[in-house]
Amino acid sequence: MFLGKVIGTVWSTRKDEKLIGSKFLIVKELDLENNFKTDFVVAVDSVGAGVGEIVLCATGSSARQTNQTKDKPVDAVIMAIVDKLDVSVKS
Amino acid sequence: MFLGKVIGTVWSTRKDEKLIGSKFLIVKELDLENNFKTDFVVAVDSVGAGVGEIVLCATGSSARQTNQTKDKPVDAVIMAIVDKLDVSVKS
Amino acid sequence: MFLGKVIGTVWSTRKDEKLIGSKFLIVKELDLENNFKTDFVVAVDSVGAGVGEIVLCATGSSARQTNQTKDKPVDAVIMAIVDKLDVSVKS
Amino acid sequence: MFLGKVIGTVWSTRKDEKLIGSKFLIVKELDLENNFKTDFVVAVDSVGAGVGEIVLCATGSSARQTNQTKDKPVDAVIMAIVDKLDVSVKS
Amino acid sequence: MFLGKVIGTVWSTRKDEKLIGSKFLIVKELDLENNFKTDFVVAVDSVGAGVGEIVLCATGSSARQTNQTKDKPVDAVIMAIVDKLDVSVKS
Repeated sequence: MFLGKVIGTVWSTRKDEKLIGSKFLIVKELDLENNFKTDFVVAVDSVGAGVGEIVLCATGSSARQTNQTKDKPVDAVIMAIVDKLDVSVKS
Repeated sequence: MFLGKVIGTVWSTRKDEKLIGSKFLIVKELDLENNFKTDFVVAVDSVGAGVGEIVLCATGSSARQTNQTKDKPVDAVIMAIVDKLDVSVKS
Repeated sequence: MFLGKVIGTVWSTRKDEKLIGSKFLIVKELDLENNFKTDFVVAVDSVGAGVGEIVLCATGSSARQTNQTKDKPVDAVIMAIVDKLDVSVKS
Repeated sequence: MFLGKVIGTVWSTRKDEKLIGSKFLIVKELDLENNFKTDFVVAVDSVGAGVGEIVLCATGSSARQTNQTKDKPVDAVIMAIVDKLDVSVKS
Repeated sequence: MFLGKVIGTVWSTRKDEKLIGSKFLIVKELDLENNFKTDFVVAVDSVGAGVGEIVLCATGSSARQTNQTKDKPVDAVIMAIVDKLDVSVKS
């Protein structure tokens, strides 16, 4: 999974019929010091994440293993909201 | 999913038999300020997207979860047309 | 899918038994101006592509959705030969 | 699989219900000389790995092939703890 | 698939129980002129490859399509040993 922050929303009315009701959030990747990296993905939310929250995203077929995303054409899902990071080995 | 703009079409007559009738669109990736990134993919369309439209693409096995792409050798699908982006966290 | 040109062949006699009879082609990625990018992949051919032809490749599990690649340890397949590209949005 | 070192933990209370009880470890990639690369992933542990240990991670759908991760929205798993590397071809 | 050379071995005694008996080889990617690229992966061998041999690797779910890797948490497999490359289009 990658670490990211929810920074916005993508609005879409014309979408695959399986995606009606799915919310698309923009998640920008973070490094371990909480700085933004350049990449972002658009992910479906399975945990009630809001804009500004730090989250974990699973990608690929693993993104379809939640109740909200099962069998849908979705390749990224927010599956956890991060409380905190403990980084204890100096890198 | 990644954000992109449909910029063209790939024409192919000799293709896997499961792909007869599939339309291949060229989708160039966009950043959050609507600028083109350097990467592009060729995707099958499941939502009636046209050239010039901003779309979301799902990749990998998730690209086969639409009626248009089920069980086909296709690793990218346009599954939503974007109405607008709301980016509310400064990155 | 990515766009590429078939530039050669990989010969292998010792290979997984499911791959007996599979032909491995070297496909170098192309940009939209027909210039080579630096990356290449080795792909199985499902459409009778020859050296010098411009093709589309599907990767990942999608590469196993053709009759030639079903259930085989193959992560890239040539699934279409390109007739031409129409790029109509300036990027 | 990629080689990495466990450098920390991600704490999360609000997560997909299938992930209750799963521990998220931060794994930073290593090169063959034991130096950190820049990338890291958050992985679920299936082998009792601790912070500071060198491990192998499997990603994608393969990350769901352990008892701890089956059918869960998890795209990276620690599936081995490394005893040592033998690199015998000079690269 | 990608082209690589087996340059070493990873030893692990504590690993997922499905991986008992699996041998982990270090495969460093090669370009078409037989020079090492910077990336490497750790792959399970399905064809009896030895250190120093040039091989093809399949990644992702395709890595689980051999008898040696079926249903195992393995995302890279050596599925062919390369006899030779024929590169006939100048790139």
